[in-house]
Amino acid sequence: MAIKVHGSPISTATQRVLATLIEKGVEYELVLVDLSKGEHKHPSFLSLNPFGQVPAFEDGDLKLFESRAITQYIAHTYADKGTPLVTQDPKKMAIQSVWMEVEAQQYDSAASKLIYELVVKPHFYGQSGDEVVVKEFETKLSKVLDVYEARLKESKYLGGDQFSLVDLHHLPSLNYLKNTKAWDMFESRAHVKAWVSEITSRPAWAKVIAPLQK
Amino acid sequence: MAIKVHGSPISTATQRVLATLIEKGVEYELVLVDLSKGEHKHPSFLSLNPFGQVPAFEDGDLKLFESRAITQYIAHTYADKGTPLVTQDPKKMAIQSVWMEVEAQQYDSAASKLIYELVVKPHFYGQSGDEVVVKEFETKLSKVLDVYEARLKESKYLGGDQFSLVDLHHLPSLNYLKNTKAWDMFESRAHVKAWVSEITSRPAWAKVIAPLQK
Repeated sequence: MAIKVHGSPISTATQRVLATLIEKGVEYELVLVDLSKGEHKHPSFLSLNPFGQVPAFEDGDLKLFESRAITQYIAHTYADKGTPLVTQDPKKMAIQSVWMEVEAQQYDSAASKLIYELVVKPHFYGQSGDEVVVKEFETKLSKVLDVYEARLKESKYLGGDQFSLVDLHHLPSLNYLKNTKAWDMFESRAHVKAWVSEITSRPAWAKVIAPLQK
Repeated sequence: MAIKVHGSPISTATQRVLATLIEKGVEYELVLVDLSKGEHKHPSFLSLNPFGQVPAFEDGDLKLFESRAITQYIAHTYADKGTPLVTQDPKKMAIQSVWMEVEAQQYDSAASKLIYELVVKPHFYGQSGDEVVVKEFETKLSKVLDVYEARLKESKYLGGDQFSLVDLHHLPSLNYLKNTKAWDMFESRAHVKAWVSEITSRPAWAKVIAPLQK
């Protein structure tokens, strides 16, 4: 099998890449990197990603890292297979790029801090989240979701009329936040709530999270 | 004139967009947004960027925000003009995307914190930087620059053999960090130092920072 994803099923960045591959119907092999054993800091992994973060990706002799670069490569390279995840129209692509950056720069910086405080700390370290930090990033995320609510009143999906990488990139963090107190922010905004409900019920996403639910 | 950049000459994100336009030889109008008067939070600006951050961009009826989405739009739309800033080869483009994400996710998150502590706080608020925060982000940036040093031993530029958007996206933060104590990190790594020297001496960049030196 030509495509290898070196990662962990619990990692949000790995999930982003797997969701893309499954949406495209592209076969791959998941090479497990055991984060609890620090395998992502071993020299063999560092040769694939010098930052020591999962996932790393191989397609034949092409080696990539950074999940959003990988998903874009897959979406463009396998454009003719499975679900179209990027538009080919230059102006529409520019709009998708804007919202792709919004996810990475505005949304995820707040969402990933909340996941660390509300999910990782209690579940992996037996600690409770820092309330001051939680409050700070709830406020930030709330402002982002206000913008999303306005956007989703005018556009069915964040990147445009079609489901795209923009929406897909949100799936892993939505899945971790849905059992936390931060979830009220998503439920209390009608258009955000409907968008979350639709994108999280895609069959490809169910396959990504199946191993977590065993 | 069709292209308008709504921004401020002192903003790193605005500088990123202006450097791209000048490299491409594309004419534009800079519509000044006075940050000191909070003009970026006025309704007229929020209609261009709901996050209230400069720059916002107009090319005819196309309205964009998020600087890295804007630079990519310019580089692709005006591919035939001026300096080529993105490759057209799909595999090379995937590698450029990796390093573009590295700049946004790894480098800039540390560099922009240092700029806030070491430049913005002393110059705009008359405060000294928080030493604990400075130390934390110097350590982070130092690790990123170790990866850059190894990369630049093998590749003349971060994204590949040619100057590209990847390198250009670093210019604004390099310019602000060069008069701070964090600059030693760049000077002490031979390949990073040579790369910084080369990319900061481009004529297009000199034009971007000329207004700051008056």
